[in-house]
Amino acid sequence: MADYKGVFIAIEGGDGAGKSTQARLLASRLREAGHEVVLTYEPGDTRIGPTVRRLVLDVASEGLDPRAEALLYAADRAEHVAALIRPALERGAVVITDRYIDSSIAYQGVGRGLGVAEVAAVSAFATGGLLPDLTVVLDVPEDVRRPRIGGLGDRLEREAAEFHEAVRKAYLHRAAADPGRYLIVDASQPPDQLADLIAEQVEKVMST
Amino acid sequence: MADYKGVFIAIEGGDGAGKSTQARLLASRLREAGHEVVLTYEPGDTRIGPTVRRLVLDVASEGLDPRAEALLYAADRAEHVAALIRPALERGAVVITDRYIDSSIAYQGVGRGLGVAEVAAVSAFATGGLLPDLTVVLDVPEDVRRPRIGGLGDRLEREAAEFHEAVRKAYLHRAAADPGRYLIVDASQPPDQLADLIAEQVEKVMST
Repeated sequence: MADYKGVFIAIEGGDGAGKSTQARLLASRLREAGHEVVLTYEPGDTRIGPTVRRLVLDVASEGLDPRAEALLYAADRAEHVAALIRPALERGAVVITDRYIDSSIAYQGVGRGLGVAEVAAVSAFATGGLLPDLTVVLDVPEDVRRPRIGGLGDRLEREAAEFHEAVRKAYLHRAAADPGRYLIVDASQPPDQLADLIAEQVEKVMST
Repeated sequence: MADYKGVFIAIEGGDGAGKSTQARLLASRLREAGHEVVLTYEPGDTRIGPTVRRLVLDVASEGLDPRAEALLYAADRAEHVAALIRPALERGAVVITDRYIDSSIAYQGVGRGLGVAEVAAVSAFATGGLLPDLTVVLDVPEDVRRPRIGGLGDRLEREAAEFHEAVRKAYLHRAAADPGRYLIVDASQPPDQLADLIAEQVEKVMST
């Protein structure tokens, strides 16, 4: 059982899957229903976040050691949990985060080959073991996802399609291993329809 | 057996124990004997180091989550190993680092109470398991160490004497658990005498 009153929701998926749109739609619905909602994201929504995000995502960091990259994300996550997520959950808010542990496992653990168990252990250290009550995985095939991104994007976005396919499979694998904590949705459907599906599952989690 | 040709030496101990002096004296002696020596330090002797060091040590960071702090140090260490230490060891250099894994274990694991096993696991991830061939622990009682520091110092230096006593014990405990990889020296003796002791042990390690 959770040691807090609130509800913790993570929205996950590749770039271009529509995570921030769905996070905002879910937040609106929950606010309309009278809940306090804290809408947040990783990496970067912390005091150290802008600096960490710049170190990791800048094209100038090309060549940054992948373990250093994973640990910078983990540091940002530790501060995120300690300064924002935990306090909000303890006062009873619904916290919706755009990316959390599964992003690190998919991108660094699988995509960059650092190992799922190793990256999971670093995240467990960072979060003190705090897991979402529900992780929504926005699943979208590569041929639907790519055109949505557009432009050159940042370093991660320029990585090859194979990388993203590995990331996608990593998400599905994680979700399959712990179905009670995950909702996989086909993110190629219209946003409002998708938002209905997600809200329905979130209501179930909130009523248990 | 190490998978490199060089020799890896870490100098450890509390602030004011004389680590940088001893690291320089050892480097001079080894250079005079014809060795390539890479003299380095943690945190901060990397491309991301100055930024990480600023995030961690600034008085403005007062209140930074201890896990975030430990992970920022670990990120710096990962980059340090990948970009500087490993390449130098592979070309046969002697690498002398002022602080390494034991600093994290003593300061974060014990001093800040994050747990020795947990912090050791994060460091193992950061370094890919790279351990020094010899770690020299400059041991100095608190009543000798404090007057050496002077001034207000940075945030860590202002921590209470109890913290430093816990750190000191952590170093001694680590060294006692793996005596083949550690040399504990009484750092209250004169610097040149201390340097002789250390050089003698380093020569032994280099000749094996």
